Amino acid sequence: MLLESLREEVLEANLELVRRGLAIYTFGNASGIDRERGLVAIKPSGVPYDTMKPQDLVVTDLDGRTVEGKLRPSSDLATHLVLYRAFAGAGGVVHTHSPYATAWAQACREIPCFGTTHADYFDGPVPVTQPLERTEIDGPYEENTGLAIVERLRGKDPMDTPAALVACHGPFCWGATAKSAAHNAVILEEIARTALRTLMISAEARPISDALLDRHFQRKHGPGAYYGQK
Amino acid sequence: MLLESLREEVLEANLELVRRGLAIYTFGNASGIDRERGLVAIKPSGVPYDTMKPQDLVVTDLDGRTVEGKLRPSSDLATHLVLYRAFAGAGGVVHTHSPYATAWAQACREIPCFGTTHADYFDGPVPVTQPLERTEIDGPYEENTGLAIVERLRGKDPMDTPAALVACHGPFCWGATAKSAAHNAVILEEIARTALRTLMISAEARPISDALLDRHFQRKHGPGAYYGQK
Amino acid sequence: MLLESLREEVLEANLELVRRGLAIYTFGNASGIDRERGLVAIKPSGVPYDTMKPQDLVVTDLDGRTVEGKLRPSSDLATHLVLYRAFAGAGGVVHTHSPYATAWAQACREIPCFGTTHADYFDGPVPVTQPLERTEIDGPYEENTGLAIVERLRGKDPMDTPAALVACHGPFCWGATAKSAAHNAVILEEIARTALRTLMISAEARPISDALLDRHFQRKHGPGAYYGQK
Amino acid sequence: MLLESLREEVLEANLELVRRGLAIYTFGNASGIDRERGLVAIKPSGVPYDTMKPQDLVVTDLDGRTVEGKLRPSSDLATHLVLYRAFAGAGGVVHTHSPYATAWAQACREIPCFGTTHADYFDGPVPVTQPLERTEIDGPYEENTGLAIVERLRGKDPMDTPAALVACHGPFCWGATAKSAAHNAVILEEIARTALRTLMISAEARPISDALLDRHFQRKHGPGAYYGQK
Repeated sequence: MLLESLREEVLEANLELVRRGLAIYTFGNASGIDRERGLVAIKPSGVPYDTMKPQDLVVTDLDGRTVEGKLRPSSDLATHLVLYRAFAGAGGVVHTHSPYATAWAQACREIPCFGTTHADYFDGPVPVTQPLERTEIDGPYEENTGLAIVERLRGKDPMDTPAALVACHGPFCWGATAKSAAHNAVILEEIARTALRTLMISAEARPISDALLDRHFQRKHGPGAYYGQK
Repeated sequence: MLLESLREEVLEANLELVRRGLAIYTFGNASGIDRERGLVAIKPSGVPYDTMKPQDLVVTDLDGRTVEGKLRPSSDLATHLVLYRAFAGAGGVVHTHSPYATAWAQACREIPCFGTTHADYFDGPVPVTQPLERTEIDGPYEENTGLAIVERLRGKDPMDTPAALVACHGPFCWGATAKSAAHNAVILEEIARTALRTLMISAEARPISDALLDRHFQRKHGPGAYYGQK
Repeated sequence: MLLESLREEVLEANLELVRRGLAIYTFGNASGIDRERGLVAIKPSGVPYDTMKPQDLVVTDLDGRTVEGKLRPSSDLATHLVLYRAFAGAGGVVHTHSPYATAWAQACREIPCFGTTHADYFDGPVPVTQPLERTEIDGPYEENTGLAIVERLRGKDPMDTPAALVACHGPFCWGATAKSAAHNAVILEEIARTALRTLMISAEARPISDALLDRHFQRKHGPGAYYGQK
Repeated sequence: MLLESLREEVLEANLELVRRGLAIYTFGNASGIDRERGLVAIKPSGVPYDTMKPQDLVVTDLDGRTVEGKLRPSSDLATHLVLYRAFAGAGGVVHTHSPYATAWAQACREIPCFGTTHADYFDGPVPVTQPLERTEIDGPYEENTGLAIVERLRGKDPMDTPAALVACHGPFCWGATAKSAAHNAVILEEIARTALRTLMISAEARPISDALLDRHFQRKHGPGAYYGQK
């Protein structure tokens, strides 16, 4: 079987979505990439999580051709592939309909950086894509979804903004690994939830200062990072 | 014992309501129909879920006469029967007071299609019935509740709109099977929750475009559906 | 040991508050009364739930004198006693700071009957007491809390309105038994939660019609009740 | 190993944050102090809770020098130390990004005392610090965070206001012991949640009267306290 350890990690990332309340039934999907071989392991489409095994994952190349696996890949595969092609640092991609992040996506509103929890993970607001046009929807829809994300991230380092909200739909997240992508999906949900409540407490809430944003992002991700163990 | 496998499935559908947080104590009820025999198996009234067994379910004909079972059927039986008579494709019916869907029902407001999660299951908004008049309430109330739903669904394919909110009351859901009806009840709650939060983030949130609605509904339910396994 | 079976029931009622998420740490308290002997069994003050045993409950008479038990009774005992003296039908009393009911109490706003879930248990809105005056607070505070509830219920059958919100504080609930009082506390929390969400969906939400209120209350509690088993 | 029993208590306080839903992944940190020796035991930085052992905690002196332990201490250590130096009664300090308290902190709004649950623990509103200036952020940031809390508490007995919200960030809580600090963090989250819902029910909600605030705070903490066991 190809990519055994990647399959294990991708399966774990999928299960993390369920454990953290980000996915019910067959909702959501996580994938991971082996950059050397150019192969992606992704959740099969519409299969329940509780019986999923590593061999149920589907392995495809970067053009979406199945290389190993008997099941159909996630219907969102094409979106994942666009992100892998565009974001060289992405080792994993996760899509969910997690409750709060999806609400922001449905409201077509970016999530302002209201606090340090957000700044620990994102170097600015969580962006929202432009809604797709009819021609984009009627064409290769899932691929166009990915292109809308890439377009929205243009000019940013995608690893410093490891998620985007697809307008009217829900979040896509990425990370250096499938595990890290799932972790970012959990954090995004936490951020989305707290941001909504912040607005409920004060409709005039303002984003934090650039100084505070930089301090928190850099203390975890900058060259002199001092969060966590060496 | 009549309808053994149907009883098992209906019991499972009832238990799913509890597992997913849609019903507490004796709230909620699920039923299933054997179309060939014209017999319905339904939860008994006011019996706790944790000790319920297949033989506790009540089997009635489509006029509500008990054919097998020692307990009283759910007090909402008459509503279920109206739906079975009107919706030929319905193999299962579920009623809950699930928290978010009930809030929409109490607000007498249909749930707009704010996103693709909704569009994956409903071919448009989740409709809300007209409040019943005093004469309808004082008459055969539960039957009139069913008639209000059927009236509201007039002109639609009920299998493409597998739930309605009964004004001032709560949701009724249906599906090809009892299992599918319970599944739709869970999804409806998820949709209702996310829709409320969408409004909280942006009071001006708009329904998604028809193009996006169609794309998502069709990719799961249309002739060229490509979600899930073949 | 006095009142062994009552102690068991009251302990169970206390534990139900924890299981249903209505009480954390030492919050909340439930009691039950033996009307023949005029004795009340109540939770001890400030004792954690997870190690509580029937013998830890305190038995007092209706004047609050401890008849059996080594621990101090709940500091809210005097409120329970006022309710037992005023409401002849009450066999159990429960006080919680459950999250949603407490929010309504803190907002000093009665809960309108927005739907049939509410009407299944309450014959009208859930009332809120008048805030206590300084002299009432500085005097026998817990007793005055009970008197404010009794005053607010004047002219109603307390068994048809089995709870009140104490302004700036939280709910007190009662029922024919301690079990039933705890059940009503759980239902009240459910009602309070759904009512808030109803207002969030539509700030103009209106109470249901008297006809619908009567129908639901009577089908569970009236002479011709047909909910549940005979 | 130094401070064995303190380590056990501090570990327990950290785990309580996870059990009560106040911390996910490596979020949050609790510490405790041995006043006689002037030594603090604190959670290591960025280490998951589920495998944490007493020996993983880091022991430092009040200047932040590690006295025992192989791991880096929490990046918020300097904030804890400022609080220990300023608040002589504090035996434990806890920092979380708990969802509701963090939302109030992000909204830069103090939590008014809307009810008796709040008054049972805080002798007034839960204060919020002034946002830090750029120079404070670019300087010794974590220490300045502590100083902002101390500044905000000036003129109050910190043991009667056992928490503060750091603007744009989240809560810091303290107590006579690490256990008590964690307990206060749980209560603060409960208070923050109920306060938000109170505002949602009535935007005009007012703080409770001083008489009621005093009564509740004193019945638990005053010289004639009668809550709990002797």
